[in-house]
Amino acid sequence: MRLEGVYCPVPTPFSEGSLAPDKLAENLAQWNRSELAGYVLLGSTGETPFLSNREKIRLIESARVAVPASKQLIVGTGLEATAATVAFTREVAGFGVDAVLVLTPHYYKSQMTGQALIRHYTDVADASPLPVLLYNVPMFTGLDMPAEAIVALSQHENIVGIKDSTSQIAKLEQVLEHAAPGFRVLVGNAMLFLPGLVLGAQGAILAVSSLATQLCVEICRCVQTGALEAARKAFSTMAAVAREVVTPFGIAGIKAALDLLGYYGGPPRAPLLPVTTEQKQRIREVLSTRGLIEKGQKQRRTRTN
Amino acid sequence: MRLEGVYCPVPTPFSEGSLAPDKLAENLAQWNRSELAGYVLLGSTGETPFLSNREKIRLIESARVAVPASKQLIVGTGLEATAATVAFTREVAGFGVDAVLVLTPHYYKSQMTGQALIRHYTDVADASPLPVLLYNVPMFTGLDMPAEAIVALSQHENIVGIKDSTSQIAKLEQVLEHAAPGFRVLVGNAMLFLPGLVLGAQGAILAVSSLATQLCVEICRCVQTGALEAARKAFSTMAAVAREVVTPFGIAGIKAALDLLGYYGGPPRAPLLPVTTEQKQRIREVLSTRGLIEKGQKQRRTRTN
Amino acid sequence: MRLEGVYCPVPTPFSEGSLAPDKLAENLAQWNRSELAGYVLLGSTGETPFLSNREKIRLIESARVAVPASKQLIVGTGLEATAATVAFTREVAGFGVDAVLVLTPHYYKSQMTGQALIRHYTDVADASPLPVLLYNVPMFTGLDMPAEAIVALSQHENIVGIKDSTSQIAKLEQVLEHAAPGFRVLVGNAMLFLPGLVLGAQGAILAVSSLATQLCVEICRCVQTGALEAARKAFSTMAAVAREVVTPFGIAGIKAALDLLGYYGGPPRAPLLPVTTEQKQRIREVLSTRGLIEKGQKQRRTRTN
Amino acid sequence: MRLEGVYCPVPTPFSEGSLAPDKLAENLAQWNRSELAGYVLLGSTGETPFLSNREKIRLIESARVAVPASKQLIVGTGLEATAATVAFTREVAGFGVDAVLVLTPHYYKSQMTGQALIRHYTDVADASPLPVLLYNVPMFTGLDMPAEAIVALSQHENIVGIKDSTSQIAKLEQVLEHAAPGFRVLVGNAMLFLPGLVLGAQGAILAVSSLATQLCVEICRCVQTGALEAARKAFSTMAAVAREVVTPFGIAGIKAALDLLGYYGGPPRAPLLPVTTEQKQRIREVLSTRGLIEKGQKQRRTRTN
Repeated sequence: MRLEGVYCPVPTPFSEGSLAPDKLAENLAQWNRSELAGYVLLGSTGETPFLSNREKIRLIESARVAVPASKQLIVGTGLEATAATVAFTREVAGFGVDAVLVLTPHYYKSQMTGQALIRHYTDVADASPLPVLLYNVPMFTGLDMPAEAIVALSQHENIVGIKDSTSQIAKLEQVLEHAAPGFRVLVGNAMLFLPGLVLGAQGAILAVSSLATQLCVEICRCVQTGALEAARKAFSTMAAVAREVVTPFGIAGIKAALDLLGYYGGPPRAPLLPVTTEQKQRIREVLSTRGLIEKGQKQRRTRTN
Repeated sequence: MRLEGVYCPVPTPFSEGSLAPDKLAENLAQWNRSELAGYVLLGSTGETPFLSNREKIRLIESARVAVPASKQLIVGTGLEATAATVAFTREVAGFGVDAVLVLTPHYYKSQMTGQALIRHYTDVADASPLPVLLYNVPMFTGLDMPAEAIVALSQHENIVGIKDSTSQIAKLEQVLEHAAPGFRVLVGNAMLFLPGLVLGAQGAILAVSSLATQLCVEICRCVQTGALEAARKAFSTMAAVAREVVTPFGIAGIKAALDLLGYYGGPPRAPLLPVTTEQKQRIREVLSTRGLIEKGQKQRRTRTN
Repeated sequence: MRLEGVYCPVPTPFSEGSLAPDKLAENLAQWNRSELAGYVLLGSTGETPFLSNREKIRLIESARVAVPASKQLIVGTGLEATAATVAFTREVAGFGVDAVLVLTPHYYKSQMTGQALIRHYTDVADASPLPVLLYNVPMFTGLDMPAEAIVALSQHENIVGIKDSTSQIAKLEQVLEHAAPGFRVLVGNAMLFLPGLVLGAQGAILAVSSLATQLCVEICRCVQTGALEAARKAFSTMAAVAREVVTPFGIAGIKAALDLLGYYGGPPRAPLLPVTTEQKQRIREVLSTRGLIEKGQKQRRTRTN
Repeated sequence: MRLEGVYCPVPTPFSEGSLAPDKLAENLAQWNRSELAGYVLLGSTGETPFLSNREKIRLIESARVAVPASKQLIVGTGLEATAATVAFTREVAGFGVDAVLVLTPHYYKSQMTGQALIRHYTDVADASPLPVLLYNVPMFTGLDMPAEAIVALSQHENIVGIKDSTSQIAKLEQVLEHAAPGFRVLVGNAMLFLPGLVLGAQGAILAVSSLATQLCVEICRCVQTGALEAARKAFSTMAAVAREVVTPFGIAGIKAALDLLGYYGGPPRAPLLPVTTEQKQRIREVLSTRGLIEKGQKQRRTRTN
C-alpha cells in the first residue's frame, strides 16, 4: 500500500449540535482540488470521542462518496476494548476505505505496557480486512507507545505504518532506524513535520493541513527535490499557523479558521467551548499575517490556500 | 443526601469474554454482610471503557436487585460529550440508583480548562434527576481538575461531592478548606485514605476495599472515635495491599485476589492482560502476609475478610 | 539522638548584598522563645546555593552562639561531589553542631540511581563525625530519591533520619513502613505535615515554621495528645499561610513576611527577585486574615506568633 | 563573533581522584587534528559541579595552551548566584578565552521565571568582558528556559547565542524564528542535531562529538552543501552512538569510550559510578558496530575517528 505525502485529518461538521455530513462533502470537494494524498476520518481532529456509532457510519458514507479514487481515505477505528476495536474495524471495512488508523487504548495507562499493546494490535491486525496504521498521540491519550513495541509491531504484515504524534524527535528517529523495511512513518505533530521528513518519514497527518494545505504539500515536495531552503521557508509559515492557531485554540480554533478560509467550520461539540470573539479576531490576524487570507478581507475566495 | 464511609467500586465479572451479571450479584451478596456504605458501579475498577451501553444497563439491573436499601448504589455515567453524558445519566436515573459519578471528560486535555469543566458539569447537574458526584482521576484521565473548578462547582445544589483520586494531599486539603458547606469529599486514592479522613474527608471510594473490606471500614470507624493508633495500624496493612497488589497488577490483580478471597474475580477484558502464574503467586503471598487469607490455604472461607 | 518536633529552616539575612549574621542572631533570639525543637542552617530556605564557603562558616559561627543547648542545631552540608561533601561535613563538625543534613547530589539526574545515592551517602556517613540526615527535595533538585534507597540507608548506624520534602504521601508512608527502627522521618512539605505526623513521622522541618511558629508547634503537640480536631484547625491555618505565601512567593515572600512579623527578613540574593509592592500587600493580607498580624497594623509586637 | 560548526564539550580527566590537566592537553592535541570549530570547557560533560574554583582555573590554563588560535575556546561560568557568576566570568576573561557559556540558575525552579532569568542574564552580560552564550539544559537543571525569555535576551548586544539542549524541536524552531538577527543557536541535544541544522541552527555543542568527531563534522558539512542523504546516513550512525553510549551510561560511559578510542578517559568523580565490566563491553560493541573502532581490536590507532 502506497502511503506518502500529506493527509488531512478532517474535522466533523456540526450544525446546531447535529451532524452535518453535507458540509463535510462540501469541504472535501474543496480539499480535493489540492495535492493532498488523502484524508483521515474519525481521528482526534474529528471529535471522534463525541460521536455515536451511528454518526460515525454516517460520516464514512458521506466521505466515501466525496473522496475520489485518486485520494486515499483512512478511517479511525480504535476503541478501548480489543474486541470492540475488531468489531468496528470489520464494520468499517465494508465501506470501501483504504486503511484504518487505530488509536492506542489508554485509559488503564500503567497496564498498557508494550506487551499489552503488542497483543492488542496483533489481535486487531490479524482480524482486520484492511491495512492497519498504529496511532500514538500522547498529548491526547497520556500514553506514549514505547519505540520497542512500535518496532516489534512493524514486522506484522498487516500493520503498514504509524501516525506518530509524539513531540520527541528522538522517538521518531529511533522508529525510523529500527522499523521493518516498508513500514511507513507519518508525522502527526506539526512541529516535527520538516524534521521528520528530513529523517526519512514518508509523510504526515496534520490538523494544520486543513488550513495551510498548500504549504504542507509544498514542504513535502521541496524535501523530495532537495530544495531545503524553500522547505524551511514554507515550514516556518506553517509552524506559525500551528503554533498560533491549532495549539492554543484546538479544534474550536481550527473550525473558526476554516470558517474564515471559506470552508464550513461551525461550532465544536460540548464540552469543547467555541472560540470567543477575541480569539476569532486573533485567528484572523494570524491567517492574515501568514498570507492565508488577504488582509482586511473577511473570507478567502480561492479555496485551497 | 448522606454520603460517608467506605464505598466499594465493584469490578465487572466476565466469563469467556461475556458479561456475567450473576457473578456480580453473588459478590454483592458477600459484600452486603460488611459495613460498607455502598457501591460504585461502572467506575474505573469496573472496566467501564470496555462496556457497551447495553452491558452497562444489564449491570445496573443486576446490582439494583442485589443491593439492599441499607446500602447506597452509585453509578458512573460520565462520557466525553456533554450531551451523551446527560442522556446516559437520565437513562440511569430510571433504575432507582442513589447518585451518579461523573468522570471528567479528558481526551482534549489542553482544552479541558476549568471553564470548560465548569460548563460541562453545570449542564450535566442541571439536567440530572440524581445527585451528581464529580470524579477526578488523573492516573487514568491524564487530566487533573483544578481545585478552583471543584470549589466553584461545589456551590451547585445538585453537585453533592467529589471522588478525588489525586495523589496530592495538598489538593485534597485545598478542596476541603474551600468547598461549599455540605459538599462531600470521598478519597479515591488508597494512600490518601487515612490522611484524607484526618483532614476532614467524609469517606472513600477505594478499589482496595473490595479486598480489604473490613480493614477499610475499621479505619473509618477508628478515625471517628479518635482511635488514631488503631487507625494507623489498619491503614498500614491496607496500604500494603494497595501498594503490592492494586498498584502493580491493576484490575487483573484485583480480580485474581478476589478469586483467592472466595469471590468471583475472573479474567479482565483485553487489552488488559490476565495475571501470570508468578503474579498470582505473589498476590497470594501478599494476601497471606497481610492476614487476608490464611497461610498455606488456597481460599478463604469467611467472606468479608 | 533525639529528633522530634518542629525544626525551623532559617533564612539567611542579607543587607545590601552582604551577609548580615547579626540579623540572624536577632531572629534566633526571637525564635528561641518558642517551643521549636531546633533549627536547620544552610538548608534550601537559607539560599545556600548562593553562599560562599566562607559565608557558610560565618553563619555557623553566629548561629552556634545564638542557639541555646536546649535547641538542636542542624547544618546543611550536601554538595554535588562526594569528596567535597565529606570535606565540608568534617569542617562543620568542628563547630559543635548536632547533626548534618545532606542534600541529594542531583545535577546528573539520570545517573543518580538508587545505587549511586547509596554509595554516596554511605561514604559520607562513614566519614562524618556527626549524625547524618538524608535530604530529599524534588521540587528543588528535580530528583526523587527512591524509597528503596532510603530504606536501605536507614540501616546505616550514622544515618539517623531523613527530611523528606516530597509531595507524595504514599512515599512517606512507604518509608515509615519499611525503614529501620529508630530512623526518624521529618516532613519537609507543609501540606504533608499533619498527614505525615498521623502516619508516624516524628516531626518536620518547614519553611512556614519561621512565620507560623506557634501553629506548627501546636499541631505537633495536638497530635501527640490525640486532639485531632484542634490539630486539624491549626493545620488548616498553617496550610493557608504555606499555600498563599511560601508557595507562590518563595524565599522572597518568606523574607517579606518576616519583615511584617517583626523579624529581619530583608532582600533575597539575585537571581531571586524581591517581592513587588503588590505582592507584599498580598502577603500582609494573608498574615492578617490568618491572625498572624493584627489587622490594620504594620508590625506585630509579640514576636513568636 | 563567528559561532558555527561543531564544538566539543570536553570531559575533565581525573587520575586517582585528582585533576589530570596533562591528560586534557593530550586529548585536545588529538581533537585539534579534526575540523571541530572549538571546545567547551567546564560544561556539563566536564563534571563542573564537582570542581573547585582552583581546579577550574587550572583547567582553563591547560586548555588555553593546548587550543590553537584556529579553534575557539568557550568556558562555562554559570553559578547559582548572579554576583558569583559575574565574578567568575570576569576572572575567566583574564585567561584569553573566546566566550563564556552561562548555565541557567535553577535551584529555586519555581522562582526562576522568565523575568528572573532575563534580569540574571542581563546583569551577567552587562558585566561580562566576553561574549555570552545562554545555556539551557533541562535534563540536568530541571528547568526549561521559556522561549520568550530567550528571544528577549537575544536582543542584548553581548549575548551572542544559546546552547539549547532541550529535547523539544518545537522550542528550537520557535527560537530560530523569533530571535534577533545574528543570534546563534547551537544544538545541545544529539538527537536534535540534524533536525536543528535543517531548521537553521548554526552548529552544535555535543558530548557525542568527543567520540564521533568526524561524523559530527561531516553532518554539518553535508547540510551546508545540501547533501541531505549523506547527512542522514552520518546522523543515523552518530545518533546510535548517542543513544546507546551517551544516554544510558552518561559521563562514565563517555570516558570509557574515550579510553577505547585512544584518548584518556579515566574514571568519573563520585558520586558518579564508573562503568561496570559489562557496560564497558557493551560500549565496545557499539563503537565497533558503528565503525568507530575496528572489530576485535582493543584500541584505535587513528585518533580522530
